[in-house]
Amino acid sequence: MTVRIGVIGTGMIGRDHTRRIAQVLAGGTIVALSDYSPEAAEKVRDELAPDAKCYASGEELIAASDVDAVLVCSTGSTHEAYVLAAIQAGKPCFCEKPLATTAEGARGIVDAEVAHGSRLVQVGFMRRYDAGYRMLKKVVDSEIGTPLIVHAAHRNPAVPEQYVTPMAIHDTMIHEIDVLRWLLDDDYVSAQVVFPKASRHAHSKVADPQIVLLETAKGVRIDVEIFVNSRYGYDIQCQVVGEEGLANLPEPMAVTRRQNASVATPILTDWKDRFVDSYDVELQAFIEAAAEGTATGPSTWDGYVAAITSDACVTAQGADGAVVPITLPERPGLYR
Amino acid sequence: MTVRIGVIGTGMIGRDHTRRIAQVLAGGTIVALSDYSPEAAEKVRDELAPDAKCYASGEELIAASDVDAVLVCSTGSTHEAYVLAAIQAGKPCFCEKPLATTAEGARGIVDAEVAHGSRLVQVGFMRRYDAGYRMLKKVVDSEIGTPLIVHAAHRNPAVPEQYVTPMAIHDTMIHEIDVLRWLLDDDYVSAQVVFPKASRHAHSKVADPQIVLLETAKGVRIDVEIFVNSRYGYDIQCQVVGEEGLANLPEPMAVTRRQNASVATPILTDWKDRFVDSYDVELQAFIEAAAEGTATGPSTWDGYVAAITSDACVTAQGADGAVVPITLPERPGLYR
Amino acid sequence: MTVRIGVIGTGMIGRDHTRRIAQVLAGGTIVALSDYSPEAAEKVRDELAPDAKCYASGEELIAASDVDAVLVCSTGSTHEAYVLAAIQAGKPCFCEKPLATTAEGARGIVDAEVAHGSRLVQVGFMRRYDAGYRMLKKVVDSEIGTPLIVHAAHRNPAVPEQYVTPMAIHDTMIHEIDVLRWLLDDDYVSAQVVFPKASRHAHSKVADPQIVLLETAKGVRIDVEIFVNSRYGYDIQCQVVGEEGLANLPEPMAVTRRQNASVATPILTDWKDRFVDSYDVELQAFIEAAAEGTATGPSTWDGYVAAITSDACVTAQGADGAVVPITLPERPGLYR
Amino acid sequence: MTVRIGVIGTGMIGRDHTRRIAQVLAGGTIVALSDYSPEAAEKVRDELAPDAKCYASGEELIAASDVDAVLVCSTGSTHEAYVLAAIQAGKPCFCEKPLATTAEGARGIVDAEVAHGSRLVQVGFMRRYDAGYRMLKKVVDSEIGTPLIVHAAHRNPAVPEQYVTPMAIHDTMIHEIDVLRWLLDDDYVSAQVVFPKASRHAHSKVADPQIVLLETAKGVRIDVEIFVNSRYGYDIQCQVVGEEGLANLPEPMAVTRRQNASVATPILTDWKDRFVDSYDVELQAFIEAAAEGTATGPSTWDGYVAAITSDACVTAQGADGAVVPITLPERPGLYR
Repeated sequence: MTVRIGVIGTGMIGRDHTRRIAQVLAGGTIVALSDYSPEAAEKVRDELAPDAKCYASGEELIAASDVDAVLVCSTGSTHEAYVLAAIQAGKPCFCEKPLATTAEGARGIVDAEVAHGSRLVQVGFMRRYDAGYRMLKKVVDSEIGTPLIVHAAHRNPAVPEQYVTPMAIHDTMIHEIDVLRWLLDDDYVSAQVVFPKASRHAHSKVADPQIVLLETAKGVRIDVEIFVNSRYGYDIQCQVVGEEGLANLPEPMAVTRRQNASVATPILTDWKDRFVDSYDVELQAFIEAAAEGTATGPSTWDGYVAAITSDACVTAQGADGAVVPITLPERPGLYR
Repeated sequence: MTVRIGVIGTGMIGRDHTRRIAQVLAGGTIVALSDYSPEAAEKVRDELAPDAKCYASGEELIAASDVDAVLVCSTGSTHEAYVLAAIQAGKPCFCEKPLATTAEGARGIVDAEVAHGSRLVQVGFMRRYDAGYRMLKKVVDSEIGTPLIVHAAHRNPAVPEQYVTPMAIHDTMIHEIDVLRWLLDDDYVSAQVVFPKASRHAHSKVADPQIVLLETAKGVRIDVEIFVNSRYGYDIQCQVVGEEGLANLPEPMAVTRRQNASVATPILTDWKDRFVDSYDVELQAFIEAAAEGTATGPSTWDGYVAAITSDACVTAQGADGAVVPITLPERPGLYR
Repeated sequence: MTVRIGVIGTGMIGRDHTRRIAQVLAGGTIVALSDYSPEAAEKVRDELAPDAKCYASGEELIAASDVDAVLVCSTGSTHEAYVLAAIQAGKPCFCEKPLATTAEGARGIVDAEVAHGSRLVQVGFMRRYDAGYRMLKKVVDSEIGTPLIVHAAHRNPAVPEQYVTPMAIHDTMIHEIDVLRWLLDDDYVSAQVVFPKASRHAHSKVADPQIVLLETAKGVRIDVEIFVNSRYGYDIQCQVVGEEGLANLPEPMAVTRRQNASVATPILTDWKDRFVDSYDVELQAFIEAAAEGTATGPSTWDGYVAAITSDACVTAQGADGAVVPITLPERPGLYR
Repeated sequence: MTVRIGVIGTGMIGRDHTRRIAQVLAGGTIVALSDYSPEAAEKVRDELAPDAKCYASGEELIAASDVDAVLVCSTGSTHEAYVLAAIQAGKPCFCEKPLATTAEGARGIVDAEVAHGSRLVQVGFMRRYDAGYRMLKKVVDSEIGTPLIVHAAHRNPAVPEQYVTPMAIHDTMIHEIDVLRWLLDDDYVSAQVVFPKASRHAHSKVADPQIVLLETAKGVRIDVEIFVNSRYGYDIQCQVVGEEGLANLPEPMAVTRRQNASVATPILTDWKDRFVDSYDVELQAFIEAAAEGTATGPSTWDGYVAAITSDACVTAQGADGAVVPITLPERPGLYR
């Protein structure tokens, strides 16, 4: 069975997912497209999915009888409504992050899915599908004993003027928030943020770098350095300290040179290149689950917890170094 | 357009390629299967391609009107005939190595394809599609100046009793023979083989390790260590020394541990894991070219040159350290 | 001029320093030895310095007219009195850490040296003489811009039963406290300690691992992981994040193996091996300055500041995650 | 006992050894200096050894009754006569390479020392004292099984105009010739040289790079890449392939940076820095043996064998790729 897929939002990421399904992955076909700019949807159709139908609205696309599953790639503020509509329609739905712009919104989706009675939604936390994180998880689960500490870093070369301090959580650290929970199979209980001297390369509206300290229910202590004006590259580091040893997230594969008085291996500078393969893997997983009428991987619950944790981290940014507790509601049986 | 593909030979590699086309890659579908053991073909059909038809012979499969393109994955000695039949039928054909068991046989295929007038055949030299070699080629082409020397190693943990000295060329170094020609955009002019003291882990019928020294038309000197009882792993090394610097083939991505008084990163032990991603890429390239009625990548000419070079290396194995010249016929225009 | 040196305390470290001066370094000679166990002093004399005289007390040794300079290697609680006596005698004095067992005691030595009017004391913070830290300092000072963050770790394989939580500061992190001040040319303004889940390998009297967070006057944020039951080795890590790039403390030189399905480089397990060369360098520096009647390198002021900082860190261990301020008195002109 | 040492030749290396003995090492003192330029000797005396006496000739220095041991650091062509004179005088003698400018000359020294009846001479092959090679030897001797292959490289950034092809052996590879014999505890039986395309950075009088292939008595095959216009640095590589695993010569300790889209570790560019510590160690060993009236480490036999091997390699450079046998006379009992 080929899963007939509709894509809502044909901007950069929606277009790219359309290309994946049309040209790279197996088992899915693009039958429907929609964008708030009809021309944009038509352009993607002409280029990548000539047989797809363009819809005037995401709601119509979701309702279309030949659409088996939906990709929500539109602007963040519209996600909540589209995902709720997809659940209402009983259709598997892949939603790019964020699931909703507020924790309450995410909670509403959780409730809707629980009411539906089975999983329908996969949230676009693609790092869980990255080969490096998967290798790391295997080692953490089996070789280094109980995890005690995680040292992580998320560094970008630079950010635009409109990037402000809370975005370091919502746009940047959100990935660590999700992937470390998954890596450790654990939940956060508190957050603290400390600010080193700011880099002279940081704009005035962003405190950069910053260090977020998280504590988990199992007692793991996590430090995440966020440094979005690091200049040197897009560099994602993760080291897990366990009772029996340490394990590091693999570096991306690269050619080492001996040249100019140096042994050097390139570091990526564009975040789009860093986890590019994981997008293929997450969407293939979505297609396979959608063929069965369900969803796997990062759930609405994960999206909801990420939203609660992000909110606590942003509160901690303003708390002058104080520790901010993170309290989660009870986890519904659907997500255990 | 979906390319309708028939697979001849449903052993390990044929089954795996069937799975790729059916479940992983885009643009192709398996419509036909054939194996000298009909039960084997049926088993793969039932498991992976329920709609495919099983044929009693490869020839019938090639002739079938709904087969657009052919994968030759049967035992090596049968390749030549099947590829010739595919060319005869004007159908794109992916042929696992070797193209033919003799250089003469390969020459015949070259002639047939030249007579046909356009490329139809892609030979299964998958390393050209490996992300690591591709990164290396990019650096060699643009950053380290004119290549002068290549140091390479091909190490296996162990080989079975039936592995004899010439197989170090035909089965093992054949990959370096092809990929280094491609990497350097060059041809070989001589080969020499020297034998270090044999490892105590080598069986009596295989001189192991051995070092093959190649010289190219452009004057590059290549040393390839072949060590098929290295014990420690399946390890492929390649370093290019250029006028302006050196470049190394990337190591496969892996988790580094700090444990047991050691910083350690695993080395693969199963050759099937080392270039596993490149099989996807080479077959995707085949499907895309086949959709256009042609073939790209490693050509029959490349297969023919690899056969000539292999023969020279085997001669050099028996030449007591003497240098054996390698002379190539003129390259047909089709392959320029 | 050969500096005539007396050694007080001929236990492990005193014996080793005697050997250095007698057999390895230039410019000094051992003329006097003393230990609370006279037999111990005589044994070291017989073995390493046959021409030295053994004294019944450290005070007599310091007073001896043919002793130009003194090494204080006795048990920690005796350091303060011996160093004061050496200053009183106007003799250059090398004192193993700690300078004194209390910050007040160290303050008294500072005052005595200031009263003397010139430097006489070098404290045994040997990491400042380590080739790796020196390389790192050079890079930090010139290549990576203003330091913003330091990530450090101090891991031991295991500690004995008598090692209790405050020793993680006084015996272990004391080295980071001194060397990071020197590396950054900065002072600490606050300390915080957080405790991850304890390792099952930690004894009941030591909370292990722990993370000490320091803030400096210039705004640098430092996290030091102390993990003294790490099992895997004695491993000292230090990464400085600067405005223009990052720099890492070099790993000790070691042979990389490719063996047993792994690329592995050994990690030391005995702390005595990690900075072994730096002991030579620090004592050579002491001899050279002593020949001029003075002292260089880690000063009594550095020892005093280390004591104040350690006290704050120990307070922070008991402060349930609260931030403990570190206030330093004004630095005397002698140490600017 | 302090060994009273005379230094013949106070150029760069003689001056540096004088400094070592005067200021860094234990157990020796400089009492005599000599140079063909008396002013040069006097300048070194004034600077580093004010109590030393300057002699008009090396012969007088050797004969001086207060000189216990001799360092021969003069120009290469004078070594043979000075070493013979030292043996004649029964005085321990450290001789910088080469021991003699011809194999016959070296043979004469071997004969003289054998006639003397005990070792007096240490040849300045300092790599045997390098910490990295010592670590490597330990691993080769105990962890990786019987050595089968050695891959080595000796790369310089550039060489001056007067550097001609045979110097690649006599001045450059001479170090590998000695240290690999020592590392493997083996002797060479043949040499072959092949020339890759020359680098555009090579002067017209030097074929660069070149690859020297050596075979040992135990059957080890060695390839040494010599590339003296490599541009990128002074880089010494050595990998030993054993029956049970591989071991690599450690890289010199260095700070790794993450900067400018690259993880980079510096490579030295000045050969003088690469083995700088080993000069201290070799001279300390000389002083200690000289105090006993003898010599250890690289012997006159080693110097003689290095000369024979070098001659064979130079012959092989002109032999158009042919294999040149290396035959050694019987080893005198003194050197077993």
